[in-house]
Amino acid sequence: MEERWFPGAVALLLLLLAAGGAIPPPEDAARMARFVLHNCDWGALATLSAQEGLRGHPFANIFSLSDGPPGPLSGSGVPYLYLTDMEISVQDLEINSNASLTVSLAQTPYCKKHRYDPQNPLCAHIIFSGNVIKVNDSEAGLAKKALFSRHPEMESWPKDHNWFFAKFNITHIWVLDYFGGLKIVTPEEYYNVKP
Amino acid sequence: MEERWFPGAVALLLLLLAAGGAIPPPEDAARMARFVLHNCDWGALATLSAQEGLRGHPFANIFSLSDGPPGPLSGSGVPYLYLTDMEISVQDLEINSNASLTVSLAQTPYCKKHRYDPQNPLCAHIIFSGNVIKVNDSEAGLAKKALFSRHPEMESWPKDHNWFFAKFNITHIWVLDYFGGLKIVTPEEYYNVKP
Repeated sequence: MEERWFPGAVALLLLLLAAGGAIPPPEDAARMARFVLHNCDWGALATLSAQEGLRGHPFANIFSLSDGPPGPLSGSGVPYLYLTDMEISVQDLEINSNASLTVSLAQTPYCKKHRYDPQNPLCAHIIFSGNVIKVNDSEAGLAKKALFSRHPEMESWPKDHNWFFAKFNITHIWVLDYFGGLKIVTPEEYYNVKP
Repeated sequence: MEERWFPGAVALLLLLLAAGGAIPPPEDAARMARFVLHNCDWGALATLSAQEGLRGHPFANIFSLSDGPPGPLSGSGVPYLYLTDMEISVQDLEINSNASLTVSLAQTPYCKKHRYDPQNPLCAHIIFSGNVIKVNDSEAGLAKKALFSRHPEMESWPKDHNWFFAKFNITHIWVLDYFGGLKIVTPEEYYNVKP
């Protein structure tokens, strides 16, 4: 039976599935923002450092994230995080919760496949500004499902680290997905759009 | 002839070549920092925003980088960047050049291959603090070779954007590559180590 499959078609299908659906057109910036976030398992978070001698300097760090279980069209758009006070960036956030989060299709197979350089706008990336907040008990279930479904090893992370569920509370969104500069998307547009 | 190759061995060899050499042991934090930077083609750069209404807030963005042509043991450790004043983060840097740069093995095939979550310290990531500066004419040749060898499309980027070569001037380095918290590496240790 196997000979009846076209390997190219199978590879393409797998790639589309892996990418969580087809990429939106670049004029649809709100959908693009949702698409890129949902297809990224992690992002870079920038905080204002609270460290001795570096207070107020920018500080970039890496965190796993999830806006919902994997698969196309299933993301909530909310970047959930699994944090501990032992993390240096979380200590920054306790002093000043302002933060910025960036995710890029360079993190997925998409840009390599299309031979787009990571700094080429066609290798879309999204910048969020806002703050990081602990989620309340009613939202913790959603956050847990979103995170643990995509980051199964989180369940076994050391209990004495006092992990908690948090979210990036989005106040500003910039989309770089085409030539001509950054596009601004409002949180309302972002959350109301069909992904 | 092809049957005489062991596909697994070939795949491993390709992976090692792609990864630019073998990963250093985690106790060798300076070498790990050099290894991760050299194996990443891009990073997330955090600046202090100069935007109206967001002045002084952290701002995370994505930039291509290179510390030297691809291949194992050939990196200089210096993160070179190709920038334009049209970039919003570069406008931030013109007001305040303090910045932070992070690179992660999550950007390479390494963590997926070993099934390490991006937030697992074994999926090593490095955080640099410092500032971004334009390189002088004598260093521009090095920067150009480092960047254009790994980002060939840069050569064709629009001339009217007034691109210039810059580097991330490293003042602090943190390495997260094992359990037990961040390790501090000095720029001296970092630049003096054999990669």
